Amino acid sequence: MPSAARHPAEAGGQASVLGNLSPMALLVAKFGGSSVADADRIKRVAERVVESRRDGNDVVVVVSAMGDTTDELLDLAEQVSPLPPARELDMLLTAGERISMALLAMAITTLGAEARSFTGSQAGVITDSAHGKARIIDVTPGRIRAALDEGAIAIVAGFQGVSQDTKDITTLGRGGSDTTAVALAAALNADACEIYTDVDGVFSADPRIVPDARHIDRISYEEMLEMAACGAKVLMLRCVEYARRYTVPVHVRSSFSSKPGTWVTEIPEAQLVEQAIIRGVAHDLSEAKVTVVGCPDKPGVAAAVFRAVADADVNLDMIVQVGSVAGSGRTDISFTAPKADGRTALTALAKVQAEIGFERTLYDDHIGKLSLIGAGMKSHPGVSARFFGSLADAGINVEIISTSEIRISVVVRDTDLPSAVRAVHGAFELGDPDGGGVVYAGTGR
Amino acid sequence: MPSAARHPAEAGGQASVLGNLSPMALLVAKFGGSSVADADRIKRVAERVVESRRDGNDVVVVVSAMGDTTDELLDLAEQVSPLPPARELDMLLTAGERISMALLAMAITTLGAEARSFTGSQAGVITDSAHGKARIIDVTPGRIRAALDEGAIAIVAGFQGVSQDTKDITTLGRGGSDTTAVALAAALNADACEIYTDVDGVFSADPRIVPDARHIDRISYEEMLEMAACGAKVLMLRCVEYARRYTVPVHVRSSFSSKPGTWVTEIPEAQLVEQAIIRGVAHDLSEAKVTVVGCPDKPGVAAAVFRAVADADVNLDMIVQVGSVAGSGRTDISFTAPKADGRTALTALAKVQAEIGFERTLYDDHIGKLSLIGAGMKSHPGVSARFFGSLADAGINVEIISTSEIRISVVVRDTDLPSAVRAVHGAFELGDPDGGGVVYAGTGR
Repeated sequence: MPSAARHPAEAGGQASVLGNLSPMALLVAKFGGSSVADADRIKRVAERVVESRRDGNDVVVVVSAMGDTTDELLDLAEQVSPLPPARELDMLLTAGERISMALLAMAITTLGAEARSFTGSQAGVITDSAHGKARIIDVTPGRIRAALDEGAIAIVAGFQGVSQDTKDITTLGRGGSDTTAVALAAALNADACEIYTDVDGVFSADPRIVPDARHIDRISYEEMLEMAACGAKVLMLRCVEYARRYTVPVHVRSSFSSKPGTWVTEIPEAQLVEQAIIRGVAHDLSEAKVTVVGCPDKPGVAAAVFRAVADADVNLDMIVQVGSVAGSGRTDISFTAPKADGRTALTALAKVQAEIGFERTLYDDHIGKLSLIGAGMKSHPGVSARFFGSLADAGINVEIISTSEIRISVVVRDTDLPSAVRAVHGAFELGDPDGGGVVYAGTGR
Repeated sequence: MPSAARHPAEAGGQASVLGNLSPMALLVAKFGGSSVADADRIKRVAERVVESRRDGNDVVVVVSAMGDTTDELLDLAEQVSPLPPARELDMLLTAGERISMALLAMAITTLGAEARSFTGSQAGVITDSAHGKARIIDVTPGRIRAALDEGAIAIVAGFQGVSQDTKDITTLGRGGSDTTAVALAAALNADACEIYTDVDGVFSADPRIVPDARHIDRISYEEMLEMAACGAKVLMLRCVEYARRYTVPVHVRSSFSSKPGTWVTEIPEAQLVEQAIIRGVAHDLSEAKVTVVGCPDKPGVAAAVFRAVADADVNLDMIVQVGSVAGSGRTDISFTAPKADGRTALTALAKVQAEIGFERTLYDDHIGKLSLIGAGMKSHPGVSARFFGSLADAGINVEIISTSEIRISVVVRDTDLPSAVRAVHGAFELGDPDGGGVVYAGTGR
């Protein structure tokens, strides 16, 4: 359990804004591509950062590439090569953060504060050699600490590192800048990692679908992990995993306002059980359902199907095996996987069709996944009754079900998804503006 | 004196083309911004480089940033900061070469050859800490050599290095990519450094002014130094100085044709004296003339004037002191300096006006400088008679004169410059298409 200084959200109840945590806090603040999309926005970020520095904080800023820079660079790469080598693609893409971080350092200097920018390599972000999706092995932020000790604001390129083995430049893949920020916060033992984005934080559902979705002030790492895994785009799974492992308090907030965002922190087990909180409803339209029809109903067949798909580097999500039709000796196996990997999964299955002996594959990309998340549900069995009751009342057919201790997920028709989200959100009264997180106790409220 | 292998131009008389030097030569080839301005040009460069590799050469390619990239980055910098810190400006601008080198490596890989790109830092280009105009202290190209040993083409970012003291990214300033190429060629003991540009090499005069200007096949380091210092833009002074110091044979040639260019090499003294070659006429419109009027005619005054200007970091070029008007005790001092430094020079002089006691300054930016260059002239006194005779015959008034052992320079009205260049070029018959360099012997031909 970290000290009180590392959990500022716990001290006052009200989530703090950057710069008002406590005198001389050490903050790592990450600004995404839309926050540094042009010169004017970079200057606004500079003002915000300098204000925090003048309040007495030590500030490390992690930046993504400006707006569309990465797409423009990818487009150039495509023009010279249909399949660019991964090492060179990383070399190319890392130019994007180099541009934004240098411009931010300039803008800060112009405001009279001292700033120094550092590449991932200079910041000590050491990774493995998996170009395009490198994993952070170690962070040795000696130059960052030196810059802070000299009173400067340190600006660090997100999304990039240097390979421990080859010394080549690597990129961390999707959500990489968030992960850079959390990893630096952990290595520097920062008081908080602030993730600036284009929304005010995490909500009880997507406000575009549920107009009365409620802002979540505080959420546990475990709940945020489930939210991220189930389609909430505000934080990447990897970044939350990293934050949980090193107990880094994360503050997700808007770069366009000074409102408090959502704190992702450790929440004591006792507190969670007692309050039985349901956090929110996440949804995901990015997956498709693959059905392997007519598999021989004998041991090892399901394993062979899943191994073939996994070997092709496709992440399986929800899985269901329909019991065999009496006497046929055959069974169907369904799973969901990212639509982007649909072709890969089908190709991998086709290769093992003869060997496994299934009849055919079906591919359905008109599905939607809905997940209810809350650490409270594990000790309150009434939750699932209410969950499925609300879907039934709304006339929604459930195709696949999967659960964890703090989550229930279902697959429905994609056209049913919005009304399903609203039904569940309403059934648990998540939109109630008076609740500090809806308190759900047992079978009724 | 280098071995024959290091002086390919000497072996055959005819300058070789890239890839036809000798089997398994080690070549460093530099392509400027216009050669890599878009995806299509990058692919053309890739083809050229791969062809050379397939001919059996080891190839290191140094690239500049694509076309207008540097200007676009400077424009962004200006938008966020009126006076960007030099360290951050270097961080920003070096993104340009990172983009072009990664794209070139991709394009080469697509053609089936192996390529690896390296930043200045990765290539071992160690500099001092003078951001924006760093000087190369050392080159430790271990990773380049390893890439070559593994059969890869090494692509290196020009114009950039890493500071020995601070480990910060530096840029080498104007002509930096040429200098990177020559420095790498020296460190790798390459057989030649090929500088690809948008012209076919060095000419006896600017072909835009002198239509029958002759292509120069071979020129000594010393002559090329004078040419570069006197306005020939094809190679930067710094790069030639570096090449001379390490005896790197430089081949300046067009990236848009396969014609032989101009070899800049060591040429034995005996050969030069014997042939008495006049190489060409250079001109320069980038300077202005400053006149300090009414200086006290006593020892130390000229030194005080020049010190004031030099302390402001202005490079003085040609200097003349007009003898004092009889009895006045006053004299005028004139010098030329880059127009870009005009304001700086005048401001520096204004500060010391009272102390030195001169009357006023005059500023004239309508001047042009013409220089005749050739290692042969030092032992042939008839050269200057013919030089000044040709200007007099053309009715051109000479304002300042300066000479070295292998150069005569004059300042004239800028409007007189084209006819002055043509007059001198014609007087020495430099346009003669039969000459292999015009042989000028004594007082006649």
